[in-house]
Amino acid sequence: MADAAVKQRDAAPSAQNSAKDEVRRILDQVKAEGRTSLTAPEGKLVCDAYGIPVPKEGVATSASEAANLADGMGYPVVLKIVSPDILHKTEAGGVLVGLKSAEEVQKGYETILANAKKYKADAKIDGVQVQQMLKGGQEVIVGAVTDGSFGKLVAFGLGGILVEVLKDITFRLAPCTREDALSMLDGIQAAEMLKGVRGGDPVNREALADLIVKVSQLVSDFPEISEMDLNPVFATKNDATAADVRIVVDFSPKEQRYRPSQDEIVRSMSRIMKPKALAVIGASAEDGKIGNSVMKNLINGGYKGQIYPIHPKADEILGYKAYKSVKDVPGDIDVAVFAIPAKFVAQALTECGEKKIPGAVLIPSGFAETGNVEGQKEIQEIGRKYNIRLMGPNIYGFYYTWENLCATFCTAYDVKGHAALSSQSGGIGMAIIGFSRSAKMGVSAIVGLGNKSDIDEDDLLTFFEQDDNTHVIAQHCEDLKDGRAFAEVAKRVSKKKPVVVLKAGRTSAGAKAASSHTGALAGNDKIYEDVFKQSGVIRARSLRQMLEFARGIPVLPTPKGENVVIITGAGGSGVLLSDAVVDNGMSLMTMPPDLDEAFKKFIPPFGASGNPVDITGGEPPTTYKNTVRLGLEDDRIHALILGYWHTIITPPMVFAKLIVEVVEEMKAKGKVKPVVASLAGDVEVEEAAEYLYQRGIPAYAYSTELPVEVLGAKYKWARGAGLL
Amino acid sequence: MADAAVKQRDAAPSAQNSAKDEVRRILDQVKAEGRTSLTAPEGKLVCDAYGIPVPKEGVATSASEAANLADGMGYPVVLKIVSPDILHKTEAGGVLVGLKSAEEVQKGYETILANAKKYKADAKIDGVQVQQMLKGGQEVIVGAVTDGSFGKLVAFGLGGILVEVLKDITFRLAPCTREDALSMLDGIQAAEMLKGVRGGDPVNREALADLIVKVSQLVSDFPEISEMDLNPVFATKNDATAADVRIVVDFSPKEQRYRPSQDEIVRSMSRIMKPKALAVIGASAEDGKIGNSVMKNLINGGYKGQIYPIHPKADEILGYKAYKSVKDVPGDIDVAVFAIPAKFVAQALTECGEKKIPGAVLIPSGFAETGNVEGQKEIQEIGRKYNIRLMGPNIYGFYYTWENLCATFCTAYDVKGHAALSSQSGGIGMAIIGFSRSAKMGVSAIVGLGNKSDIDEDDLLTFFEQDDNTHVIAQHCEDLKDGRAFAEVAKRVSKKKPVVVLKAGRTSAGAKAASSHTGALAGNDKIYEDVFKQSGVIRARSLRQMLEFARGIPVLPTPKGENVVIITGAGGSGVLLSDAVVDNGMSLMTMPPDLDEAFKKFIPPFGASGNPVDITGGEPPTTYKNTVRLGLEDDRIHALILGYWHTIITPPMVFAKLIVEVVEEMKAKGKVKPVVASLAGDVEVEEAAEYLYQRGIPAYAYSTELPVEVLGAKYKWARGAGLL
Repeated sequence: MADAAVKQRDAAPSAQNSAKDEVRRILDQVKAEGRTSLTAPEGKLVCDAYGIPVPKEGVATSASEAANLADGMGYPVVLKIVSPDILHKTEAGGVLVGLKSAEEVQKGYETILANAKKYKADAKIDGVQVQQMLKGGQEVIVGAVTDGSFGKLVAFGLGGILVEVLKDITFRLAPCTREDALSMLDGIQAAEMLKGVRGGDPVNREALADLIVKVSQLVSDFPEISEMDLNPVFATKNDATAADVRIVVDFSPKEQRYRPSQDEIVRSMSRIMKPKALAVIGASAEDGKIGNSVMKNLINGGYKGQIYPIHPKADEILGYKAYKSVKDVPGDIDVAVFAIPAKFVAQALTECGEKKIPGAVLIPSGFAETGNVEGQKEIQEIGRKYNIRLMGPNIYGFYYTWENLCATFCTAYDVKGHAALSSQSGGIGMAIIGFSRSAKMGVSAIVGLGNKSDIDEDDLLTFFEQDDNTHVIAQHCEDLKDGRAFAEVAKRVSKKKPVVVLKAGRTSAGAKAASSHTGALAGNDKIYEDVFKQSGVIRARSLRQMLEFARGIPVLPTPKGENVVIITGAGGSGVLLSDAVVDNGMSLMTMPPDLDEAFKKFIPPFGASGNPVDITGGEPPTTYKNTVRLGLEDDRIHALILGYWHTIITPPMVFAKLIVEVVEEMKAKGKVKPVVASLAGDVEVEEAAEYLYQRGIPAYAYSTELPVEVLGAKYKWARGAGLL
Repeated sequence: MADAAVKQRDAAPSAQNSAKDEVRRILDQVKAEGRTSLTAPEGKLVCDAYGIPVPKEGVATSASEAANLADGMGYPVVLKIVSPDILHKTEAGGVLVGLKSAEEVQKGYETILANAKKYKADAKIDGVQVQQMLKGGQEVIVGAVTDGSFGKLVAFGLGGILVEVLKDITFRLAPCTREDALSMLDGIQAAEMLKGVRGGDPVNREALADLIVKVSQLVSDFPEISEMDLNPVFATKNDATAADVRIVVDFSPKEQRYRPSQDEIVRSMSRIMKPKALAVIGASAEDGKIGNSVMKNLINGGYKGQIYPIHPKADEILGYKAYKSVKDVPGDIDVAVFAIPAKFVAQALTECGEKKIPGAVLIPSGFAETGNVEGQKEIQEIGRKYNIRLMGPNIYGFYYTWENLCATFCTAYDVKGHAALSSQSGGIGMAIIGFSRSAKMGVSAIVGLGNKSDIDEDDLLTFFEQDDNTHVIAQHCEDLKDGRAFAEVAKRVSKKKPVVVLKAGRTSAGAKAASSHTGALAGNDKIYEDVFKQSGVIRARSLRQMLEFARGIPVLPTPKGENVVIITGAGGSGVLLSDAVVDNGMSLMTMPPDLDEAFKKFIPPFGASGNPVDITGGEPPTTYKNTVRLGLEDDRIHALILGYWHTIITPPMVFAKLIVEVVEEMKAKGKVKPVVASLAGDVEVEEAAEYLYQRGIPAYAYSTELPVEVLGAKYKWARGAGLL
């Protein structure tokens, strides 16, 4: 039996080291014995080492010893078989609970041994564990899993049906902070249960969070712990104790992804995105060729740097001197855009390496996506050998508008703005371009990531983080090749700039997800959901939403508080806008009486003060003006949502112009607040909405939900970045 | 104690009558004694009468009698105080559970009496109830509430935290059918619990459904039963037994809403919506007046019936002979449109009554919405007195395009189509008009309902049900004045035509909801959600969604089965479309091998067969054509979702035209299936989307979710109408 004193993880470094040494010793033994899981006593020792509370227990090798142990710890007790050959103890009849006397314990001991023999005659039996039986409090589950993309994750849920039937479980990247752990307690649907229902005691949140943190630290310190399940953990008003510990290990070596330093990423990505000189490999003068489209986009797009067409035979292409190889180009080249068939890529890429070009934009398809995994591996190796960062392959290229750079075969796009978008899929990239043009959305960049043989979402985040032209980053992805790196970078970047992600493949049954029990409970998507939240990422629910967020978030100023006020001409819009406010995680300000009175002065006696402020439909422009001005002026109000109703008295463009006027007037006085608008009316409201949007007020015709969704996204970001 | 034999509700009529007589007798006594709730023994008698299973029990008036009773029913037992003055028994210390012997029962009896005295010294105590204690199975709650709008509702949920913390409860209108009751068992989040988890037995679904039906019948037979709670009900593999019965009564008389017969509604609504002659009360020749806008809209809209301007002084208005009163008009008038201030309405309406005009469109505001409740009551009374149906007041009027009728002061709208829309709010009405014009959505009617002093959503449903020009009905509402009538009519109408409802005020804390315990658990919105579902109503989640559903549903043919196939040029769109399919309650067809092979023949070797069928981006028009043709031809496929990717090889309009061509070709062969499309590309895809939409293929640019939402809505309707 373990006589080791409980060691606190947060004790002095030497204690920490000895804790690590103890776990290392146990794992070494498990490895030496070729096992894939720890016995219960080993599990308890590991918990002891990390200060994870477990019940009193001991292992008996005879019935009388079992009774003695039980007498020592007090009744009731639990008996469990200890055998490296029996993993599913209950199934083997190897568990008896609630034994209340020495006599029952003695009889139980014999029963368990007999059951074990019956279950597996040749099982090696180390004895029977006698364990203090925990009662009362709330049964919860704490676990850890290893995800293919995110690595170590810690999991938390309530026991029983809530996890099993309702999948009410939440994940965080391990190791996690105390704040992360506390947020997990609020991150389940049944969170209220922990606060004590039906007169029950609330759990000790600090103790539970402490246990979660320790589990997350343990699995992070020992990557070979692939799964850990503390189920159940009894959480009471005093403490949290793990009644059962299951630890699964995997000692097989894991391949590490190549990760340059953040500085190196910025350096190479800057040369790719803002090149002084650029080569087009496969440049062509022939219409319809990809290499021709790329050349034209570069030239017509107004790119001011050097353009070097590379072509095996031509001397000149579209007025530019052509070269046979990048190696023949006299000056430095920052990036090579590939517009040649897949089979020629490796050779040309090697030449780029020899020329010390730091980046390659691999437009060609015909790699992993068509089954040519070997071909993709080959170019990845060349990239690593020569330290070339690879974008793609199988992409449309990229745009960086502030350099007038359209390194793509798609249509050119040149409306400068502050949204940087990327897509894993070419089709979605085309939708981004179309939407941007249609909505007059200014962008800083649009990037295709395709097969992501090298450059990944996290590389883009690292670049856009320090790119002053970019104020919001919106990414479409189907998977994250290295979710861990993405989350770490996103957590840092999202503190400065909003990061929006549309994760496709939400519903695909999470088949590739963690194979473990705890992981399989919720499915892959819940992991993405939780990690995005932990990382401050705003999740878009649809393509259109991602696009609207990219468009609206950089336009809106950051709110300084949570007090949202609706001012509406249409009572009906007010109701729908209120619904949308709640749906999008905001709340309507409770009007202070003096402010209520102040609004009342501007609206007809039958209008409704309170919030929404219903100015009623038949009002002249001054009523909108007065109420909106008041809303912007009063510092207790932090954001305005406007509901406009088309009337002859206040036509759409009159409304739009006066709102812009008031907003500008207040801005001049230092009153800067996010304002969004919903416009109900005949088609003239479309022009008014566009007018407003172009002037910093996201406005939508025929929709009460879209403006509020955009405001809600800005709020989500501000909260995640700690600005609220 | 009850010695009455258990009476089955579904027995012969005489038994049913005697069951009713028994309950009537009990309720009469409760009423006579001025009580608002039944005692436990009374509750048991009521359950007995309706065949609702309850445990064995009896009431003892001495400790020894209690022990005798317990001996007779077997241990363990529960003891409960019986007192009309103590409603919250547990709070009063009036409940003891799990008593295992005669001795415990005797002692318990004394304890309970002592507690009761302490709780309320002057409480009248009828004795102590001894009840067989039920164990095992699944604890569930069955209840009934009285909702202000929907009347009697039956409720079902699992006991404990699932109802209390997670609000996992479901409602149906009472009385409900066996099918409704069975659907409730699947209508909770934790439905799996009833099927037996962790090796437990499944509950007896028929027994549980039977109990629910009986409760729903009981509260319907006796409207004075305002609340009923069976909590817990023990549901086992054999039966379902209510362990505790709580019945609250309310004998105060309820006001009944005036309801004409369905035939009468159709008759009067037809004269309003398709009038041969129409009076404009307050018609004016003066620009800017509401009565002028109405006249112009009627004239310029092309209305072919008689128009009678009513004006106190004018002889002629805009070329039409004017009259001082409707009573001066020589011929019959079908409807009077009011464009006069509120204060003159009552007098003019009385004249309409004397003229026997069956309908009044009350545009004026200044009634209940401004606090003038009396004024509204006055016109309601005039309406009833003369049998005039009232639309409004406080509305924009209405449009009925097939009669070229714009009886409104808003802008005219004349694009004939098959969607009939209505809104409670004027602002939302203007959004409907703007969206319709912008999206070229044909409508049959747009109707403002405003204060709904008389004509309500259900009247419109009844009219549009038989209106051949209307194929889909979409309604915005903030409340349903008579949810019961709405649900009953919607249930019938939705079998023939899709009914879409946008219920605003979803999140307003349901304050006006049922005041009872069970009702308050879920909040008002869950009731709307469940009743809409029970009635076959498609619920729109946002204003834009309601509009898109109204636009798309009538355009799409009804699918003949559940097999949905995605054909996409963009793999990325395929993933997002798949997500949307699941989100919208559909499922992707599992491809039969032969069909898979057939598709493979048309797509490049590196394209992905299966579902989505990924034809890859670089394909010529023929690939789209061949695959879509196959998708339409094969009878195992019931609906197609197309993902288009803009390329030079297959430009947007080429794609759009070929799709229309193939769909038409197949239609000629009798292959009619719903097809929707998502278009990813540069702005030219907008024109292509419009081309497709105008030809029966709902198509959206830059969105993967909208086309699938529309298809999903059509599916929801088809299932609700029993067509799938």
